[in-house]
Amino acid sequence: MNSNDTLERLASIIESRKPGQGGDPEKSYVARLLHKGPDAFLKKIGEEATETVMAAKDIDHGGPTAELNGKLVGEVADLWFHSLIALAHYNLSPADVLAELERREGTSGIEEKALRKAQHREATND
Amino acid sequence: MNSNDTLERLASIIESRKPGQGGDPEKSYVARLLHKGPDAFLKKIGEEATETVMAAKDIDHGGPTAELNGKLVGEVADLWFHSLIALAHYNLSPADVLAELERREGTSGIEEKALRKAQHREATND
Amino acid sequence: MNSNDTLERLASIIESRKPGQGGDPEKSYVARLLHKGPDAFLKKIGEEATETVMAAKDIDHGGPTAELNGKLVGEVADLWFHSLIALAHYNLSPADVLAELERREGTSGIEEKALRKAQHREATND
Amino acid sequence: MNSNDTLERLASIIESRKPGQGGDPEKSYVARLLHKGPDAFLKKIGEEATETVMAAKDIDHGGPTAELNGKLVGEVADLWFHSLIALAHYNLSPADVLAELERREGTSGIEEKALRKAQHREATND
Repeated sequence: MNSNDTLERLASIIESRKPGQGGDPEKSYVARLLHKGPDAFLKKIGEEATETVMAAKDIDHGGPTAELNGKLVGEVADLWFHSLIALAHYNLSPADVLAELERREGTSGIEEKALRKAQHREATND
Repeated sequence: MNSNDTLERLASIIESRKPGQGGDPEKSYVARLLHKGPDAFLKKIGEEATETVMAAKDIDHGGPTAELNGKLVGEVADLWFHSLIALAHYNLSPADVLAELERREGTSGIEEKALRKAQHREATND
Repeated sequence: MNSNDTLERLASIIESRKPGQGGDPEKSYVARLLHKGPDAFLKKIGEEATETVMAAKDIDHGGPTAELNGKLVGEVADLWFHSLIALAHYNLSPADVLAELERREGTSGIEEKALRKAQHREATND
Repeated sequence: MNSNDTLERLASIIESRKPGQGGDPEKSYVARLLHKGPDAFLKKIGEEATETVMAAKDIDHGGPTAELNGKLVGEVADLWFHSLIALAHYNLSPADVLAELERREGTSGIEEKALRKAQHREATND
């Protein structure tokens, strides 16, 4: 499996669900969210982030088990999927996000800068 | 660019930052989060989800512009990056999430089921 | 109106909806959430926090108007209400939260300490 | 202790920290957040909601204990406190939120309506 294919293919499917592309809110969940507008899918990002955190806490305390691990994977999938819907709505793509992640990876010193900030926060009791 | 390469490479870097793999909390931001434990990076998932929502609302009202689009892409990158840290901590991988997304894509009727639920919610004024 | 009365009265109503107090999940929304268990109402806290943020951003860009202000007030009410449900589940009360807020208010230097931390974060580019 | 006094007094203190009221970002944490603008305190609402959820999950699994209960109370206090900062910024008050909660409490049938919606969601497998 190639994640570029996966994310790009999902992005293409989402693109085809846009109201202007013939997406039918009566037949497609994605078309329905896009039709309802940003608040509908942005709210889901906050919701899925919370569910991801809860699923992780369940593993902290009761796991890992195949069931709890599967729950966490499912919540992260929901979180990323609704991120893709948001990106599509704003005419952005997963490739933009991956390029940004690549850029950071390639920027030497990025981790060091984030680290210095975090150390200062800790030194000051945050 | 190949996102499989991107996400898997990031996952490998994160893996190498684990305390047991020699990650040094004094030198790496990721090692530091992993060293502090789950609450440190789970909190970031909630935080980055909120920042993603705020960046999107700014485009709704003032965009799109290159700057606002870049801001949203950066927030989604932060959100996905901290998701990868969580996955690594629980010995899960981006491939697990992509496989779940593939599985759903391949499951005919998934969108239809989500849609029926959403339509019921709407019919009942949710 | 006295907020102590308001919050305490709401807490009493919520208390009476607990399964052990005769709360009926078929007749009461609160009883239903309490019956379903923590994840059901904790998820709502994440959701209502996100909706609060979105309602605030709408005022930033298009307000203030009576309608947008009312939306924000309604979302904060939802957020506090679901906080009260969580407190009740864990046998805690709004009085505990208000006492904690009183305690901080009375602790001279609290703002100064929070401020020093925040200044350090800013100095280090957070 | 009277929560009206508590919340209103906190609201008054926050009001006095507004830039236009002489609040000094160099001396007060609240003045500093208000000076930085909405994204600074809205982000905190998302963050504190996530921390509330994590503290609750810790009680689910390891509690209740005085320490874990105190942690949850502290997170809800943080969540409400940053809500008060947001309300102040938009010239709204805790009294507005309490009035909205009173209004709902007084509206017979509110719980029944919320319940019917929730039952439909459950019937449709949400």
